Amino acid sequence: MKIFHYTSAAPTHIDNDQAKGIDARVVIGRNDGADHFCMRIFEIAPGGYSPKHAHAWEHELFIHSGEGEAYDRGAWRPICPGTVLFIAPGEEHQIRNTGARKLVFACLIPSGVPEL
Amino acid sequence: MKIFHYTSAAPTHIDNDQAKGIDARVVIGRNDGADHFCMRIFEIAPGGYSPKHAHAWEHELFIHSGEGEAYDRGAWRPICPGTVLFIAPGEEHQIRNTGARKLVFACLIPSGVPEL
Repeated sequence: MKIFHYTSAAPTHIDNDQAKGIDARVVIGRNDGADHFCMRIFEIAPGGYSPKHAHAWEHELFIHSGEGEAYDRGAWRPICPGTVLFIAPGEEHQIRNTGARKLVFACLIPSGVPEL
Repeated sequence: MKIFHYTSAAPTHIDNDQAKGIDARVVIGRNDGADHFCMRIFEIAPGGYSPKHAHAWEHELFIHSGEGEAYDRGAWRPICPGTVLFIAPGEEHQIRNTGARKLVFACLIPSGVPEL
């Protein structure tokens, strides 16, 4: 069994022309022997956002803390602690932080695709 | 895309000789077209616990709120908001709430096993 606080994993910082203010961590993945799916934890700073994109695999998200919005078929929908999102393969999506503190969520993907 | 607060899903209450004070929800599963893995949200009341058991599939957990302990190879290890747990196939495990408020966590399993 592996038990740890997610903040003890080293983050990858992402700031580019498509994404802003992100610290991403792979917390359970292939290196742990997780053969079916992978857990990543994302922190998005106030004003930050993930890329608006689509890909061939699904996301399962759980919002832990903070406030934000998710892009879904042309509209922005509010997300808050306790919100669950299922983003099916091929669906365009983006997450942005509209609050004053970090937006933190778990985002899971199937094995066999890039972990980050 | 499916977006909702986990509390809007109907819970299954579990109280028996092996588990106490649990409200369990399948929030993303086969009925949503999630073909690879399934997200459940568990709420454990103060003093409550999940069964001490083992099975052939893994768990990936993220602790959302509350305080508790996880049974791991004969010892109880503290868990708190932000704790991540990877429970490999075959590992005996149990979660108990040692705090004064609900212990809430996401627990993910691969597809093809009982969702609850």
